[in-house]
Amino acid sequence: MAISQLSATEKAAATTLYLMPVPTKITHSAGEFRLHADFQIQVTGAPDERIYPAATRMLRRLSGRTGLFFPQDFITAADNAKNADLKINCKRPGKVELGENETYVLTITPEHINLNAETDIGALRGLETLLQLLSADANGYYFPCVTIEDEPRFAWRGLLIDVGRHFMPVHVIKRNLDGMAAVKMNVLHWHLTEDQGFRVESKIYPKLHQLGSDGFYYTQEHIRGVIKYAADRGIRVVPEFDVPGHATSWLVGYPKLGSKPGPYEIIRKWGIQYAALDPTNENVYAFLDQFFGEMAALFPDPYFHIGGDEVEQGKHHKAEHWNANPGIQAFMKKNNIADNAALQAWFNSKLVKILTKHQKIMIGWEEILHESMPRSIVIQSWRGAEAMVSAARAGFQSILSRGYYIDLIQPTDFHYLNDPLPPDISLNAEQKNLILGGEATMWSELVTPENIDSRIWPRTAAIAERLWSPQHVKDVDDMYRRLQSVSMQLEELGLTHEKNYEMMLRRLAGSANIHALRTFVDLVEPVKRYKRHSLNKNLTSFAPMTRVVDTARPDAQVARIFRKNVSAYLNAGNKTIAERLQADLKLWNENHDELSMIIERSPVLAEIEPMSKTLTQCAEIGLQSLSALRDKRTLDKNSIANAKRVLAQAKKPVAEVELMVVSGIEDLLEAAGK
Amino acid sequence: MAISQLSATEKAAATTLYLMPVPTKITHSAGEFRLHADFQIQVTGAPDERIYPAATRMLRRLSGRTGLFFPQDFITAADNAKNADLKINCKRPGKVELGENETYVLTITPEHINLNAETDIGALRGLETLLQLLSADANGYYFPCVTIEDEPRFAWRGLLIDVGRHFMPVHVIKRNLDGMAAVKMNVLHWHLTEDQGFRVESKIYPKLHQLGSDGFYYTQEHIRGVIKYAADRGIRVVPEFDVPGHATSWLVGYPKLGSKPGPYEIIRKWGIQYAALDPTNENVYAFLDQFFGEMAALFPDPYFHIGGDEVEQGKHHKAEHWNANPGIQAFMKKNNIADNAALQAWFNSKLVKILTKHQKIMIGWEEILHESMPRSIVIQSWRGAEAMVSAARAGFQSILSRGYYIDLIQPTDFHYLNDPLPPDISLNAEQKNLILGGEATMWSELVTPENIDSRIWPRTAAIAERLWSPQHVKDVDDMYRRLQSVSMQLEELGLTHEKNYEMMLRRLAGSANIHALRTFVDLVEPVKRYKRHSLNKNLTSFAPMTRVVDTARPDAQVARIFRKNVSAYLNAGNKTIAERLQADLKLWNENHDELSMIIERSPVLAEIEPMSKTLTQCAEIGLQSLSALRDKRTLDKNSIANAKRVLAQAKKPVAEVELMVVSGIEDLLEAAGK
Repeated sequence: MAISQLSATEKAAATTLYLMPVPTKITHSAGEFRLHADFQIQVTGAPDERIYPAATRMLRRLSGRTGLFFPQDFITAADNAKNADLKINCKRPGKVELGENETYVLTITPEHINLNAETDIGALRGLETLLQLLSADANGYYFPCVTIEDEPRFAWRGLLIDVGRHFMPVHVIKRNLDGMAAVKMNVLHWHLTEDQGFRVESKIYPKLHQLGSDGFYYTQEHIRGVIKYAADRGIRVVPEFDVPGHATSWLVGYPKLGSKPGPYEIIRKWGIQYAALDPTNENVYAFLDQFFGEMAALFPDPYFHIGGDEVEQGKHHKAEHWNANPGIQAFMKKNNIADNAALQAWFNSKLVKILTKHQKIMIGWEEILHESMPRSIVIQSWRGAEAMVSAARAGFQSILSRGYYIDLIQPTDFHYLNDPLPPDISLNAEQKNLILGGEATMWSELVTPENIDSRIWPRTAAIAERLWSPQHVKDVDDMYRRLQSVSMQLEELGLTHEKNYEMMLRRLAGSANIHALRTFVDLVEPVKRYKRHSLNKNLTSFAPMTRVVDTARPDAQVARIFRKNVSAYLNAGNKTIAERLQADLKLWNENHDELSMIIERSPVLAEIEPMSKTLTQCAEIGLQSLSALRDKRTLDKNSIANAKRVLAQAKKPVAEVELMVVSGIEDLLEAAGK
Repeated sequence: MAISQLSATEKAAATTLYLMPVPTKITHSAGEFRLHADFQIQVTGAPDERIYPAATRMLRRLSGRTGLFFPQDFITAADNAKNADLKINCKRPGKVELGENETYVLTITPEHINLNAETDIGALRGLETLLQLLSADANGYYFPCVTIEDEPRFAWRGLLIDVGRHFMPVHVIKRNLDGMAAVKMNVLHWHLTEDQGFRVESKIYPKLHQLGSDGFYYTQEHIRGVIKYAADRGIRVVPEFDVPGHATSWLVGYPKLGSKPGPYEIIRKWGIQYAALDPTNENVYAFLDQFFGEMAALFPDPYFHIGGDEVEQGKHHKAEHWNANPGIQAFMKKNNIADNAALQAWFNSKLVKILTKHQKIMIGWEEILHESMPRSIVIQSWRGAEAMVSAARAGFQSILSRGYYIDLIQPTDFHYLNDPLPPDISLNAEQKNLILGGEATMWSELVTPENIDSRIWPRTAAIAERLWSPQHVKDVDDMYRRLQSVSMQLEELGLTHEKNYEMMLRRLAGSANIHALRTFVDLVEPVKRYKRHSLNKNLTSFAPMTRVVDTARPDAQVARIFRKNVSAYLNAGNKTIAERLQADLKLWNENHDELSMIIERSPVLAEIEPMSKTLTQCAEIGLQSLSALRDKRTLDKNSIANAKRVLAQAKKPVAEVELMVVSGIEDLLEAAGK
């Protein structure tokens, strides 16, 4: 078949292989480089030292995937095999900083592989591309012959991990840094303080971590270890110390900094709290000067995130601490501060001075955007599309997180198609340059170290592609095709998004026999956005995160493929697809009996029993519709009306999960009624 | 059925429930304590602080298994709910030291649960028992009413983890400490130095870790963190610094301590090396005095392991460093030192003085046993049964590791029935008291952080039972029944012995479709003892540990159950078992086609293709034998002879794995020939 006869997705597949992010430019040529057991790597040029362990890790991953026993142990500058198979050349040492050159050129011929980059950080990106190119046939492993010229579209490609609400041990952070590096992300935004926990050791103010963390915090050695680990992968670490709101855990040890008299206790529930630092108290600034000075020395990146979100800007409420504090109210009157937003801007302008003194650039959530602020700061957009546009027009740099809230369990394509700089954005070229990139945000109300990876991966790989690849790369089907392969490759880095699924199912079933349970959970997703909090008032920082809702994964693949098959069948009536649909529906229709037996032994599963019964009914409707469609019969009006009622009911969440095949079955029913 | 009519295993099951280790005394009574969402815990008495986080962790695990939202967050001494459901009382703070009281009494009535212990460490053991008692029926979760009085048979119940050969990050150690605590083990023997790596930061001699570790070492803060984590679980940490042999990595930074002129390089291959400290060099003792002093302060346990194994005691070889060093030879002559064993004793006697000065008790491998040594030292037996007996007769304390070498991939029952104090041991009571317990040893030539758990667990749980439970607890079938349940519970602690199996299979298959591959790998085990090293000369510290042999698990359950079913069928001719055998054999007989398709896409699997074909043939023989047995036909001599040849061939290892169903099929064939 000629390329011109292929569908858009097939064309993409032929050129994008299994690469994610898709490179800027890829030129295919004939032949392949066959991988052999004597494969050797040589590094030349003037790279930073980080290239040697990075090349060694790449070689070990290649060895792990292929089972080949390569002769090199630790690659060093002394390795200069005359005929090295992979030659890496870097012109100069890369700096782990915003805007560093990350370009690379990868050339694969049947004889050699050359990876050329301005910096070792570019070379790191190229090594990940090379690993993704590994292919196999009956004769062995090979790399297809290509030339790839690659560079990122945006300089800031981040992942926020919130360790305040649920603490994440160092090894969880490290495995996610490995995942980020695999898809060429370059910023870990480490959200370190929250109402629920203060997670960094302070030697100057030790009561911060001693009283504010329940004992779950990082020592400064841990922090330095993570920064080194990230820098070895070309990833910046931007810490966030959220002030003046979200600060309860600071006040447990230092109540006098607050806007209300103490004592304060660590918060266990979720939602916006009223506790806030007192912006009228000079001791607060002296404290922050000292503390930020300590942290400025600990975190080398010039950018320093001060949060600034969700302080009292909305409708006034007497219980809010600023509004209820007569001293603060008097201060505002005296200084002509019109409202709380202006009060926060007053606070932030003092923070800018402190940070500037410590050689840091302030970054904060969009609430810090205020006409009075200096243009050196960076705005992180999270609520509305307009924030970035108005920030850019006002001359502020910004990054996008709205639409990348991966904690809200939305499907991959929703995030994938969310562009920081959509073609229709009404900004001039100069203003567009102020948009630095974006960040996926992993807020941790509803995740533990056990299931956090399943919320981050693989969806974040698609966000990474949005931030790296050219704007025109947006074929959703092709993205899903590649995502499946990337997801499995991420497992070699220790990420648990795949393997903890069955582990959690085994615990739920109390048995290794999880077949029927898996069939069911494959079809459900947690409810979206903030709905879990309204459905379940018992969700706290110590609530169990081990139920079906915590096990079920975002963008459930089996359900998604079913919906896609329905739509393909209704479009083209393909017989193979009909058979696949029939088999799926039959399996689901008959699943309940076996699942009931599991539920009977596992009371933790009792909550999903109604939905399991519903699945039986929905599948029955699907089978009847399918049968009518194949026989070109029309279902009678009564049964259609009944079925519609059942399906409408089936869309309602049960046990905080949704059944994700109902809309597909509705489509079948709809078609069978015509 | 009355208890008297039950088989031995059924009787055991009725009384041992799913407990592992089986407690000393268990009294069953009617009824159960029904678990409810308001379940609360109260701690009284005078425990160490460690009980509060331990009780909290227990509550969270209970919540995780049941999905119940309990009201308590962090349990503290202030929690004094009048009607707490679980009351824990400890008379005094426990000390994490050899011989500390670990007894507890657990009483469950329909209204309350009481856990009484002399120390909080005993209470920790009781909390694990309570978690293992969790049961469920259609009405919910409950604990059966029992009274358990429990105490360990041996005071020293250890697991050795070798981090010298393959480094294991802190989180790998911590999850294994959790596993140990779950089965009541109380010593982590941390083998920290090897020819392949020196894994501890020394501030006095920094070239030890800087030049001896490839960058893979624990900082002193890491070490303190692990010791604290272990102590919180009532587990001692005994460090091992192996001298004078196994010391190449020391000599990379400090070559002058060696018995040969340097330079030395970190060893990448396996097997005994010749490098050894020079026992005639006074600087060696000055060095060890300083270094052991530093480590003595870092590791609080009074016991300090100096290794002492595999120095030049065997047949002399000119390449051995002691024998080849004229200075050492002259020294021995001058001091009337008869042989190398005596030279090592000379060395050790100086070490005893150094350790005594630093308030440490020496422990070492059985080679340190020498008439001239003081009776304060402890001997660790690893080679022969006689070492412990002769040590005890000579008045030395000892622990057993021979028979607990879990790196050698032997079946669980082999380790389980290996008793440190078998009934027929010829020692008097006083001598018997010198036998302190035992240790499973996880040597790490052939494991990485990815598969180490699968070599440790679940088999080590059976060793833990041997060391804790009364001697008479030795029903192998009942052990296996309970082991399966314990193995799944261990997963909640983050252990990867179950979940990395399928992950590794997915990587091998390059796909999520692993059905046929799993069917095959379920039936194979790595070759036993040291055979892999003779079959594969490429095994080094950087070799891939991702092949089928590294994925396959010891004591393969599917194969074991098949063999057991064969034997049950041949004994009793049960029809249901025959059907099960038939189904197994049919599945295996037909597996090759599907597996071939996977192999074709995954060259890393090509090495197992011959064995997959062999499985087809073996299963065919099994099916024919089974059919003959059912029809009461006798197979003809020719086909029996042919089949025997096939089966004999099928026993040979391929790709370092063995097919573990051949002996069962042989038994079927044998019976069908009669």
